[in-house]
Amino acid sequence: MAEFSFRITETCGSARIGILETANGCIETPYLVPVATLATVKSLDSSDLESIGAQCVLANTYHLYLRPGDSIVKKLGGLHKFMNLKVPIFTDSGGFQAFSLGYGMEHNINKLGGVFSGDKKAEEGKEKLARITEEGIIFKSVYDGSKHVLTPKKSMSIQSNLGSDIIMALDECTSPLSGYEYTERALVRTHRWAKESLRHHDRKQAIYGIIQGGYFRELRKKSSEFISSLPFEGIAIGGALGKSKKDMHEILDWIVPMLNDRPRHLLGIGEVDDLFECVERGIDTFDCVAPTRLARRGGLYIRPESGGKISNKFRINIDNKTFREDKEPIDKKCKCMTCRKYSRAYLRHLYAANELAYFRLATIHNLSFMLTLMKELRESIRGKTFSKLKKKWL
Amino acid sequence: MAEFSFRITETCGSARIGILETANGCIETPYLVPVATLATVKSLDSSDLESIGAQCVLANTYHLYLRPGDSIVKKLGGLHKFMNLKVPIFTDSGGFQAFSLGYGMEHNINKLGGVFSGDKKAEEGKEKLARITEEGIIFKSVYDGSKHVLTPKKSMSIQSNLGSDIIMALDECTSPLSGYEYTERALVRTHRWAKESLRHHDRKQAIYGIIQGGYFRELRKKSSEFISSLPFEGIAIGGALGKSKKDMHEILDWIVPMLNDRPRHLLGIGEVDDLFECVERGIDTFDCVAPTRLARRGGLYIRPESGGKISNKFRINIDNKTFREDKEPIDKKCKCMTCRKYSRAYLRHLYAANELAYFRLATIHNLSFMLTLMKELRESIRGKTFSKLKKKWL
Repeated sequence: MAEFSFRITETCGSARIGILETANGCIETPYLVPVATLATVKSLDSSDLESIGAQCVLANTYHLYLRPGDSIVKKLGGLHKFMNLKVPIFTDSGGFQAFSLGYGMEHNINKLGGVFSGDKKAEEGKEKLARITEEGIIFKSVYDGSKHVLTPKKSMSIQSNLGSDIIMALDECTSPLSGYEYTERALVRTHRWAKESLRHHDRKQAIYGIIQGGYFRELRKKSSEFISSLPFEGIAIGGALGKSKKDMHEILDWIVPMLNDRPRHLLGIGEVDDLFECVERGIDTFDCVAPTRLARRGGLYIRPESGGKISNKFRINIDNKTFREDKEPIDKKCKCMTCRKYSRAYLRHLYAANELAYFRLATIHNLSFMLTLMKELRESIRGKTFSKLKKKWL
Repeated sequence: MAEFSFRITETCGSARIGILETANGCIETPYLVPVATLATVKSLDSSDLESIGAQCVLANTYHLYLRPGDSIVKKLGGLHKFMNLKVPIFTDSGGFQAFSLGYGMEHNINKLGGVFSGDKKAEEGKEKLARITEEGIIFKSVYDGSKHVLTPKKSMSIQSNLGSDIIMALDECTSPLSGYEYTERALVRTHRWAKESLRHHDRKQAIYGIIQGGYFRELRKKSSEFISSLPFEGIAIGGALGKSKKDMHEILDWIVPMLNDRPRHLLGIGEVDDLFECVERGIDTFDCVAPTRLARRGGLYIRPESGGKISNKFRINIDNKTFREDKEPIDKKCKCMTCRKYSRAYLRHLYAANELAYFRLATIHNLSFMLTLMKELRESIRGKTFSKLKKKWL
């Protein structure tokens, strides 16, 4: 049996603090899980993650299956040993790529209906690289064009080889542009795959079932009921999450009241405002590439005390010329290594010169910023001051 | 006056151990100075340099003048503050770019006569971007094509703004393909520039004069005599250094006996065998992009105990498929962070996937390897076992 437990220690409205325990350590929730797609949080190594205090990471089944290959990771002792990382590791199931490499590419959208910003290689090609059958997802590799079939059994086998602590059932992430009928057919399939995933998964790993159903109340409720009825260790909520953040909140309002005390993971979400809105609605964990991807593109988070607000998305763009001679750190209130050691001017110089050091320093800041925010969210739940904190930020 | 002293503490033949003292700390020589072209050792930050134990770095006048601009660095408190680095900093004078962007590009050669491997941008363009006048070097920026004139006075002013501890006189680095006559004319100019550099340099900085003269014994001797006669704090030896390593050794054999006890820096040299050959001939400091550049291109150093030898240039190429499942570190004898934490298989995966984390981990290894080798060289001089160590390696 998987070494796994989840204990809720405090609540404040629907928001809650929990302790998620695995063989590789604990996660105090709510938590934003840093994304380590290819067994590396881009630009960082495991010492950096330790310094930042990352409690866990999420790696990507599809990408690791293709590179370096899950059997190689297994031979090398699994992801923890491969990455030399001693914290719980989540893996997704590969189901999201059914969308991002399929409909997402075809329709050039992301799962909130915005412009697609998924895999760069895929983005450039624009040729649809995934399609769905009843058995699974048929992929064309983004690396060499080779063909692969991801069935629930195969996804479980890959995730077993990767040796993560928390795995996901294979699902089909539909498009915000899919209609009711398609979304319903996909849901029937996702539910069947959920049961197959449960049947085939490695018992040493904790498995989360994924609720789908698009922006259709009836389907989301059906899915919540069905997935909750199965013996999953946790529940994940997958996209499509409507066409706006308001839609997403509504979807959570439908789903969450139907869930019991198992941990709840919201897949692929994690901008600053999302964290407030979704923690408030009872979400325990998130994963999102935004903090790391934005960092690499020059977007650095700042707190309200330093001018961060909804309208600037809580960030500055370090490429801005106004920072050329700015001696201040990114954020005076931030205690991360980057802010303790370097000025905006130095970071701007590194960014403008496309210097490798920039990417790491920026990533360290953005992740530290987010993990600090998560800590403040937890403290505000504990102190019953969540609304006050939310008001300060939003 | 510059806070600067150099004290020789041990000798073994012509090889010697020294302590070079500056306001920002000491360097125990012989030492290979890591190159921080644009105020960053590519992929590392100052904490990494501290962890590696880097005693100093060398930054590039030409590149920093163009980006972010020396006046900006000055406003930000100089290079030490800009980089948050508390060790002595060397800057070159920009004279090497007279070659690499001029003759080097035109003739597609490096200063030992091999294929030019200088600035990537320049390499791609192949248009000559520098030419020499009696007043100075006329450059076209590799970034925006803008025109700039680097005179001795200007080079001194830039280096003063950068605030480095040890600066270089402006020189003209000639091409290995230049004949006697041109090299002699260039030498007269370099000697005049040496005096002008001395006249205009910031007295708070220690200044090294540069010996030129190509692969011409008479000119090298003339230059050694002239540069030695001036009140420079140290002596640097510039290229062209002939067309082979043998030529380079011969050039050192002509020059070094003519120098007194001031510190001797060999510009732009630093492969493993060079360090042995040149330390043996009395060189105190080196600077070379090889360890960092090779690291980024997959070339990782290994010691003789791990199979390193002249024929494989003391390195493995991590891209090699044989490393796909290799659980061992790059070099079992290496104590660097990368070797303590990660397998060749993990590094190969990161390299093959072009993951940013690779560049830093590889750079940490190669620099640590070189700095450990320098330490062993010093210990062998102290213990009078230099020849034994050289035999073990070469």
